[in-house]
Amino acid sequence: MLAVLTGGTGGAKLIRGLSLEVEPRDLVIICNTADDLVLYGLHVSPDLDTITYTLAGLADEEKGWGIKGDTFAVLEQMREYGWQTWFRLGDRDLGTHLTRSAFLREGSSLSQATDRIRTALGVKASILPMSDDRVETRIVTPRGEIPFQEFFVRDRWSDEIERVYFAGAERSRPAPGVIEAIRGAAGIVVCPSNPVTSIGPILAVPGVRAALREVERPIVAVSPVIGGVAISGPAAKLMASAGIEVSAFGVAKAYADFIDTVVVAREDEGLGVRIAGLGLRAVATDILMNNLADKRRLAHEVLALLGPMC
Amino acid sequence: MLAVLTGGTGGAKLIRGLSLEVEPRDLVIICNTADDLVLYGLHVSPDLDTITYTLAGLADEEKGWGIKGDTFAVLEQMREYGWQTWFRLGDRDLGTHLTRSAFLREGSSLSQATDRIRTALGVKASILPMSDDRVETRIVTPRGEIPFQEFFVRDRWSDEIERVYFAGAERSRPAPGVIEAIRGAAGIVVCPSNPVTSIGPILAVPGVRAALREVERPIVAVSPVIGGVAISGPAAKLMASAGIEVSAFGVAKAYADFIDTVVVAREDEGLGVRIAGLGLRAVATDILMNNLADKRRLAHEVLALLGPMC
Repeated sequence: MLAVLTGGTGGAKLIRGLSLEVEPRDLVIICNTADDLVLYGLHVSPDLDTITYTLAGLADEEKGWGIKGDTFAVLEQMREYGWQTWFRLGDRDLGTHLTRSAFLREGSSLSQATDRIRTALGVKASILPMSDDRVETRIVTPRGEIPFQEFFVRDRWSDEIERVYFAGAERSRPAPGVIEAIRGAAGIVVCPSNPVTSIGPILAVPGVRAALREVERPIVAVSPVIGGVAISGPAAKLMASAGIEVSAFGVAKAYADFIDTVVVAREDEGLGVRIAGLGLRAVATDILMNNLADKRRLAHEVLALLGPMC
Repeated sequence: MLAVLTGGTGGAKLIRGLSLEVEPRDLVIICNTADDLVLYGLHVSPDLDTITYTLAGLADEEKGWGIKGDTFAVLEQMREYGWQTWFRLGDRDLGTHLTRSAFLREGSSLSQATDRIRTALGVKASILPMSDDRVETRIVTPRGEIPFQEFFVRDRWSDEIERVYFAGAERSRPAPGVIEAIRGAAGIVVCPSNPVTSIGPILAVPGVRAALREVERPIVAVSPVIGGVAISGPAAKLMASAGIEVSAFGVAKAYADFIDTVVVAREDEGLGVRIAGLGLRAVATDILMNNLADKRRLAHEVLALLGPMC
């Protein structure tokens, strides 16, 4: 069994590749939920959905979010009613949020709702929220504190960041199966997701980081940064604000207490010596995933680094 | 000011006509809400919406429900998740239910939510739910008790009806403005809606029928029945089950304690003597409303029967 830690877009690319290289039933994906938000009374879990849609073959891989070919009629009507519509919920996508919200209202946990959704969509891999408890990434800016999606989507990460924290993290518990997956995995992959706001919240759930540190089997992280630039999104800005060097070395250092290997871009091969200084192995390869072949090849290489899977 | 009691489809036709003949600001529409239902956690008010969409120029007048040209992408996705989708919620229509549900969750009353929705859609007439309290039409059948929409939409009124009742009616209060509108109106119209499950619930809200009885100004009802056949829907079956004669006379008798005049089809002119026996005036005219001209003409005639409006 392979355990995978991930956020949304960047992680989804590698997970798409992994799903072609590993028996899907042997994949357990532990997903960030600190970007979740409540919109129009609906519980929206962007990262869970991106991963679920990716594995269901529904994802809009070009946009990196939502369902391929989705329409936006509901949102147009919501605008008529004066709602803000900067968070682009598609119509079919809304079906997911309605379903999740109805399940939660009926008393299901987020894990249970996630499981029912992925099962209905024919996804064989397990998808686990990091926690069933509400953890919320908050961005502290000079103009005040804002939720992650306002910073990320509404304001296109234009704000200066003073600090990032995960409200509720200290009281949260790992979702059922998370610690078991980490302990039982033949190998663990940390996806090329934002180390601050995608992987960071997962590590902030009490017990997760400690479990990762105790793992005997190999843990491989893939860098989301190439030559000092984030592959996508606001990772660079967020890393800098968290005092993490914006480089594959910075990523390796952020995970140094629990990973064994970091996969870096060929451009970053020169960082190998510094990374070795952290007691980690750096492996350089092509880490940009522009198409399905890239995803599969990188997944294949990552799996090879994990050694023979039990 | 003209007060109007209505259900959905049939009433909406006359209201469309009235809106062309009366200054919209002078219209107060009191609407059945006992057909309301909760679907996927959303509060759906079919009659309120039909009236609101009609006055906003959005109604699908051909189907008699929903928004013209609406799509059904959300519902298709809900079916993927295993939900029942016999109640056809369109995408734009869902925007209304999301909005209403969000307002209710924030603490708005149904009246307040209805008012915000009609205002956002540019509707000038007042639209009042009969009550802000939950009243629910229940159909008792040989196979058990079912909610109105299951009887009406899902099962196409195929069940034998033993009894109809309005759960919660006895504890409900008229919504703010309902009694005031009845008392303050220069005239009152009872739309050609189903007397059992559309007008019946409004009359079952404590205080409404008593207020109507006390009104000095004229009250005119339009028959939803022509020659023993309901113009649309299950009115005939429901009337029969309630012991109401399925005729314009039956309608007149059901309202005889508070109306002055009943407008009947030309085919039913012969019922005039029996209706006069109830102490009511019967006026025969063309009551089928197949197009906008019909709606406007009938509205004009009904208004003439109310005499000069103050």
